[in-house]
Amino acid sequence: MAKKDNISMSVIRRLPRYYRFLSDLKDKGIERISSKELSKKIGITASQIRQDLNCFGEFGQQGYGYSIEHLHNEISNILGISTINPTILIGAGNLGRAIATHISFNSIGFELKGIFEKNKDFVGKTIQNVPIYYIDSLEEFCKNNKITVAILCIPREATSEIAKTLYSLGIRNYWNFSHYDLSVKYEDVIVENVHLNDSLMTLCYRISNNFIID
Amino acid sequence: MAKKDNISMSVIRRLPRYYRFLSDLKDKGIERISSKELSKKIGITASQIRQDLNCFGEFGQQGYGYSIEHLHNEISNILGISTINPTILIGAGNLGRAIATHISFNSIGFELKGIFEKNKDFVGKTIQNVPIYYIDSLEEFCKNNKITVAILCIPREATSEIAKTLYSLGIRNYWNFSHYDLSVKYEDVIVENVHLNDSLMTLCYRISNNFIID
Repeated sequence: MAKKDNISMSVIRRLPRYYRFLSDLKDKGIERISSKELSKKIGITASQIRQDLNCFGEFGQQGYGYSIEHLHNEISNILGISTINPTILIGAGNLGRAIATHISFNSIGFELKGIFEKNKDFVGKTIQNVPIYYIDSLEEFCKNNKITVAILCIPREATSEIAKTLYSLGIRNYWNFSHYDLSVKYEDVIVENVHLNDSLMTLCYRISNNFIID
Repeated sequence: MAKKDNISMSVIRRLPRYYRFLSDLKDKGIERISSKELSKKIGITASQIRQDLNCFGEFGQQGYGYSIEHLHNEISNILGISTINPTILIGAGNLGRAIATHISFNSIGFELKGIFEKNKDFVGKTIQNVPIYYIDSLEEFCKNNKITVAILCIPREATSEIAKTLYSLGIRNYWNFSHYDLSVKYEDVIVENVHLNDSLMTLCYRISNNFIID
């Protein structure tokens, strides 16, 4: 598959959306779809979809459209979601528990090996069979389990110190809910931020300005 | 303040980030900052910051930099976060509880008036003093409380039906965690999606491709 260099984050961020809609169509037993129908379902123009997919190779066929199973598999391969990254989660509060449950029910590239918490009331319990450990055992656990990804569900104030430890352990991949900007401090890390407040403020702006189109 | 037309979503999505860093600087008692220093802290080029802010008026002063309190207030006004939008939340699972708590601790434009749940075990309890009601009372509650925003923390399968009800009640603003694409079905709604799976898949791609820069 001929893959272009310099693929932009905007293209990458649309791939999961394609994957999501294709999973749906596949589950419904649909075998192929025209680019026009696909465009309507996803809410992205046919030419944008074509342009995005062209970054990774040739998928559609003139007059035939897209084979759903083929395209679904290809996007799954592009995203790398069948890889298993050994992962830990820090913070067993409401959000941490929600995310731990989410990860366990969606087999997408990550295996949650352990949850770490400083509140001893939680320690020894499990979330979807994943044990909650006391934060003190973090270093040993990460080394023994070759952890490569950390999910941060802790308040911003606590993140600076934890990030320092995780970075020193060689962890370079983060799913970050903490409102602490890791990538400003550490230049060689991969961070997917879920900044809930940023999202809320954006919603606020859009409501105030009646800004519908995303 | 002269505001440009056609401000792009990319600009809008950077505003909360500016706001977040300015809040920090303000809390530290810092009064002004050069565009160069601000750029370094935020991790966005000085020219990009200038260009973004110029969409909304004139803020910096040559040789003086930015007055932090002034800029903080202006961005707060631009975002409209001192408005109070009467809001409900649907779904009192782990995620719903996390989000309800989050909203209560961050006074950003939304007042959570009620939480709705179909599981009767939760009904009658509260989260941060916000009552949990049985889903049956949704319509009456929304009418009586002039609800304008709904937060969806329910599974995708359940969202189609709930969205239909909310839309028929005139609710046009959504903070959507449900993986259901509201804006494909309803064209005149404002939706801020937090698609956790899309974020996870993007992280997956970036890890597989060592894609650091965001």
